[in-house]
Amino acid sequence: MERKLRMGMVGGGIGSFIGPVHRIAASIDNKIELVSGAFSSTKDKSLLSGKNLFLDQDRIYGNFQEMFQKEKALSSDTRIDFVSIVTPNNSHYEIIMEALDSGFHVVCDKPITINSQQSIEVEKKVLETKKLFCLTHNYTGYPMVKEAKDMIYDNHLGNIRKIVVEYPQGWLATRIEGDTLVWRTNPQIAGISSCMGDIGTHCENLVQYITGLEIVELCSDLSSFVENRELDDDGSVLIRFNNGAKGILWASQIAVGQENGLNIRIFGEKGSIAWRQENPNVLQVDWLEKPREIRTTASSFVGESSLANTRIPAGHPEGFLEAFANIYNNFANELSDLISGKEVIGHKEYDYPKVQDGVRGMKFLEAVVKSSENRNQWVKIS
Amino acid sequence: MERKLRMGMVGGGIGSFIGPVHRIAASIDNKIELVSGAFSSTKDKSLLSGKNLFLDQDRIYGNFQEMFQKEKALSSDTRIDFVSIVTPNNSHYEIIMEALDSGFHVVCDKPITINSQQSIEVEKKVLETKKLFCLTHNYTGYPMVKEAKDMIYDNHLGNIRKIVVEYPQGWLATRIEGDTLVWRTNPQIAGISSCMGDIGTHCENLVQYITGLEIVELCSDLSSFVENRELDDDGSVLIRFNNGAKGILWASQIAVGQENGLNIRIFGEKGSIAWRQENPNVLQVDWLEKPREIRTTASSFVGESSLANTRIPAGHPEGFLEAFANIYNNFANELSDLISGKEVIGHKEYDYPKVQDGVRGMKFLEAVVKSSENRNQWVKIS
Amino acid sequence: MERKLRMGMVGGGIGSFIGPVHRIAASIDNKIELVSGAFSSTKDKSLLSGKNLFLDQDRIYGNFQEMFQKEKALSSDTRIDFVSIVTPNNSHYEIIMEALDSGFHVVCDKPITINSQQSIEVEKKVLETKKLFCLTHNYTGYPMVKEAKDMIYDNHLGNIRKIVVEYPQGWLATRIEGDTLVWRTNPQIAGISSCMGDIGTHCENLVQYITGLEIVELCSDLSSFVENRELDDDGSVLIRFNNGAKGILWASQIAVGQENGLNIRIFGEKGSIAWRQENPNVLQVDWLEKPREIRTTASSFVGESSLANTRIPAGHPEGFLEAFANIYNNFANELSDLISGKEVIGHKEYDYPKVQDGVRGMKFLEAVVKSSENRNQWVKIS
Amino acid sequence: MERKLRMGMVGGGIGSFIGPVHRIAASIDNKIELVSGAFSSTKDKSLLSGKNLFLDQDRIYGNFQEMFQKEKALSSDTRIDFVSIVTPNNSHYEIIMEALDSGFHVVCDKPITINSQQSIEVEKKVLETKKLFCLTHNYTGYPMVKEAKDMIYDNHLGNIRKIVVEYPQGWLATRIEGDTLVWRTNPQIAGISSCMGDIGTHCENLVQYITGLEIVELCSDLSSFVENRELDDDGSVLIRFNNGAKGILWASQIAVGQENGLNIRIFGEKGSIAWRQENPNVLQVDWLEKPREIRTTASSFVGESSLANTRIPAGHPEGFLEAFANIYNNFANELSDLISGKEVIGHKEYDYPKVQDGVRGMKFLEAVVKSSENRNQWVKIS
Repeated sequence: MERKLRMGMVGGGIGSFIGPVHRIAASIDNKIELVSGAFSSTKDKSLLSGKNLFLDQDRIYGNFQEMFQKEKALSSDTRIDFVSIVTPNNSHYEIIMEALDSGFHVVCDKPITINSQQSIEVEKKVLETKKLFCLTHNYTGYPMVKEAKDMIYDNHLGNIRKIVVEYPQGWLATRIEGDTLVWRTNPQIAGISSCMGDIGTHCENLVQYITGLEIVELCSDLSSFVENRELDDDGSVLIRFNNGAKGILWASQIAVGQENGLNIRIFGEKGSIAWRQENPNVLQVDWLEKPREIRTTASSFVGESSLANTRIPAGHPEGFLEAFANIYNNFANELSDLISGKEVIGHKEYDYPKVQDGVRGMKFLEAVVKSSENRNQWVKIS
Repeated sequence: MERKLRMGMVGGGIGSFIGPVHRIAASIDNKIELVSGAFSSTKDKSLLSGKNLFLDQDRIYGNFQEMFQKEKALSSDTRIDFVSIVTPNNSHYEIIMEALDSGFHVVCDKPITINSQQSIEVEKKVLETKKLFCLTHNYTGYPMVKEAKDMIYDNHLGNIRKIVVEYPQGWLATRIEGDTLVWRTNPQIAGISSCMGDIGTHCENLVQYITGLEIVELCSDLSSFVENRELDDDGSVLIRFNNGAKGILWASQIAVGQENGLNIRIFGEKGSIAWRQENPNVLQVDWLEKPREIRTTASSFVGESSLANTRIPAGHPEGFLEAFANIYNNFANELSDLISGKEVIGHKEYDYPKVQDGVRGMKFLEAVVKSSENRNQWVKIS
Repeated sequence: MERKLRMGMVGGGIGSFIGPVHRIAASIDNKIELVSGAFSSTKDKSLLSGKNLFLDQDRIYGNFQEMFQKEKALSSDTRIDFVSIVTPNNSHYEIIMEALDSGFHVVCDKPITINSQQSIEVEKKVLETKKLFCLTHNYTGYPMVKEAKDMIYDNHLGNIRKIVVEYPQGWLATRIEGDTLVWRTNPQIAGISSCMGDIGTHCENLVQYITGLEIVELCSDLSSFVENRELDDDGSVLIRFNNGAKGILWASQIAVGQENGLNIRIFGEKGSIAWRQENPNVLQVDWLEKPREIRTTASSFVGESSLANTRIPAGHPEGFLEAFANIYNNFANELSDLISGKEVIGHKEYDYPKVQDGVRGMKFLEAVVKSSENRNQWVKIS
Repeated sequence: MERKLRMGMVGGGIGSFIGPVHRIAASIDNKIELVSGAFSSTKDKSLLSGKNLFLDQDRIYGNFQEMFQKEKALSSDTRIDFVSIVTPNNSHYEIIMEALDSGFHVVCDKPITINSQQSIEVEKKVLETKKLFCLTHNYTGYPMVKEAKDMIYDNHLGNIRKIVVEYPQGWLATRIEGDTLVWRTNPQIAGISSCMGDIGTHCENLVQYITGLEIVELCSDLSSFVENRELDDDGSVLIRFNNGAKGILWASQIAVGQENGLNIRIFGEKGSIAWRQENPNVLQVDWLEKPREIRTTASSFVGESSLANTRIPAGHPEGFLEAFANIYNNFANELSDLISGKEVIGHKEYDYPKVQDGVRGMKFLEAVVKSSENRNQWVKIS
């Protein structure tokens, strides 16, 4: 790379959880520099956040409109290359559209938008503006997730028959909606779903990433276990895939004791894999004809994709931030190649979630909600 | 106890897996003696099996009819007290009915019968003859399962919200039906289901045992992944319980690498538990307000029910056979009290699965199959 | 087998922990029948114990001398074939010697005696009387321990370099010597050591069983952490083996929270294994050139020795009692062959701990105590 | 903080493992900026490394002498605040001394020097120059290590009795000394020990950090299992602590299958803890009177020290780099306070390893080697 890429951030000011995550993830590989931001809803707060980040005061803005306008006006060797959007769900659509129209590439926290119609418009805009779009479905960034993907794409497991993906959390097991940070169960901000929108979509994305299979039909049962909660805090989904495989997806925010228990098990004709986010450097592999194997990040027994997304030797655990950083790093690689005029290998080859992941996720979410609202009948996904 | 109880066995001859399991389970606590048997389909084979078990030749029979008739004719201090039935599914009904009519108490391997109608007739016959009936849903015999049950009955977890129970196995991942021992996928012998009948019903029973909740509605999706297989080898079920809890039950015989992976997770308002059959002496307990706990069989931190079903100190693993033996032991306790004229504490208090478990299991199984056959629609259970 | 073997028991009356363990272990495989016993220090207590076990009153004795004398006088198709000794340590020597002199084969709980001199005399007596002698170092009975042994004897791991064997328990972390059952820290009964004698010797035996290596030199550091305790409750030992391998052995009775944490790790040139008693059906195997493997009891990937000591299919956990039963079962196989005049395969081939294990264990224990008492200097073992 | 701290690096050029680790660790919390470096042994290589890091060419130097001289000459708002030293062991002493003499604070990769005499001179120089000195014993940076420390300092475990600390690796199980990167077994570069120097000292430091106990005596047995290896590749050490506690420390580079298996178990009178570096977000806690607890990074059940060293919510695994970053972060906090004239809380309160850790580590290492060379006799540490 000839130079660091310049990032501007929308959202992620003081008090944000996801803002610092994006900033660390973007910076770990030393390819991206945060140079600008519209961090909060008021100019003063935004300034304070930016100052804490040692930004040039001129590059700290009161809102994204101002930011895009002023940055656009800067010289090409100064202005931001891309925007990182880390605001609540309901604002994504507007910011993405304006960022793309302003000529900036985009990294956006998931979900892409709050409905599929918006996401389809974003997709059109991305194609039209020829900008890059990265959606931070960060769990696909883990090396052992990539190892699982490689094993399946190389057909080591044979035809996939059954997939069980889970995402239990317990933080909403009681009513904590009084806390202003808890906007996830507020339909005005979060959209049509809390549990399925926030974490169920990570499950869907993880399955699709690892297996390449498409969901064609589903039957869901969503619940709001905590009294007076407006959106779902738990859901179970039966799934059918385009190759005939069957699946179960469940996510919960009321699973007492569970922290961030995303995990996936995939059973094929010849082998199976199991992976757990909370101990992410381990991939359990089963075979028809051999004993269970334990593969670990960066060991000499794993494949290229996982190694390419690893920074340190085996036995030195890499975690959530490193996986998140892999998303940014792979995005940065494509963006850098694009900017420097190198031949881009082929957009699909850069390993990060793209706008299509967003569209597919929104369609999945809408089908899940539709099934549950429609007396839990089966719903097809086009 | 004043004397050992005398057991006669139907089935379980040479080559049987489950016969020896029942015999070891019955004998471990030194309360039951095997004295008679009709072990195989021919007299010669039965004799050979019985001789290997050091039985008196006069007490080895060619079929159950002969056995019941001749044993009945023996003096009351010689003849068998109860019959243990370990034949394939489709023969249970006839043997049970005749055993009860002959005046014998019954222990029967699960499933009780091959349809609910038969099971209801068995229930009537049990009530009419006032004999004891024990169905060996053996997984409820584990001490840590009893600990989980106690915690829930003592309301430590609060209202139950979500239950996830799984039973993955991999032994039928390929077509091995050529092996004559593989009758589980043969509808003439196994009945209407392979996977759900053989192991899905263990899940149902385990949930009901631990929580006391009843399944009121379900939606299932059964599959036969292996070509030309006549019955299901995998199934997923969404469940609703009578208290509003939601559940997921899945069982599989094609989950490559899984041996006997029965496990259950139960999430309540105040706490949660998780238990795995393959490491059965551990119960994971989560709380809203405290760190995760690990409770272990026979430790000083567990309750009376689990201790009453434990033989050795903490750290000395008890396994499948000991859990199975707990079923026989608790049955033997009631039978011994009954025979010796002691006041029976109350039939329900003796901790083993009874005829009602069998009826409920058959109704569950029929609902699962009905849902799957009826375009996976929701089915209510009365 | 033509008939069941007849066992008489010395010790193991009401209140004993180890008595029932031996009885269950002896009976599980239906090859041994308890027919006689001198269970307690008084005739009345012994009678009560024997009656609870449904024994013929004539075969219940007040002490072992009476038992051996009267049993000897019975006809050869009635009298006991062997004696099972489950008394406290200090009485073993006398009972063993008299049993052998009376013409009975012997199974004895470990330790064989309370010093090496006695054990050597037992060894001579065994050779002289040509009786079988089995010492219940029960942890070698686990199938996955046998799998580990096979792997090393078949040289899959290459030359062994390092061995780490541990046995932490916590039950003596506080002073509970008031409890009369706690004789383990009483030198009059237990001998020269508590922790090392009771559980350290299991470590030594396990290492020797799995690897076949002999300890040639050691340096130990024993402690009595609990005030006023007369014997060691913790110890660490550096070890050198006859092939140049190095070892660490530690055992503790004050390791708070540990139940029965025996475990072993063996590192060879080409591979390594790890096994934990508390989850005994799993053997972890590492290789220079392949990912970690998980082997499990009774799976299709394990060898003959482990399978020969397994009763039920993979995934159905076998525990402490089954491992203990394997000791009795293998002893019974030799004894039965001997009695029936079958050609005994070769005494060494019957897989149970023999008198030589006892002698070696006592020498090890004496060396450990000597080193610790002698300012923790290195001590050679002949 | 008013500004980012400016870091210069010595060593860590292209091909280095530990250089990038330090750079990422230094940058994650956005308090430190790399502005200068002497990355390699030649100017050209150094320039290439620095250019890849997007450094100003004027600040890239051919050797540390040039770097210190020229940086010293820069204005106070430009020159580096501190030096990060990531060269092989034998060069540390000279670079540290010159850095301190040049007025720079120092972060140095461990070991501090290659003998205790050098380390004592460094200690004197640090006191004399009043500069800060940080030694990157990075494993003390893990949140759950800090939780363990807090529990012990708050006396939750009672008096400590036994400590078992292990550090098995397998990467030197075969002779790979042909690889030029393998300087660890070369006494000219590594010093008097390979295994104990590289990883055994991490064990010593971890024990001292968590417990505050001092080692007073030890007995060690080092080995070189691989033929023609000049330094130890495995070692076992018996340890005595100043409070009467006993310990075992072992480290190995020939433990086939082990990646980076540092782990520690500490047993007190009232409780015990266990921690494993490869799954670092979990702390196992045992109690005399309660079931085992599982504490996790960032959960609501852990103490302040661990929370202060955590960046993301519970269930989002933090790994090796984050733990390493905690060392830099805590060092940066003190340095920033010092520079800005804030009252420094008290040097000891800033939670990172200091020069005294280095001196103590070298004395430990020399005692270990002395014991092993002196027929494994016990050696006292002053």
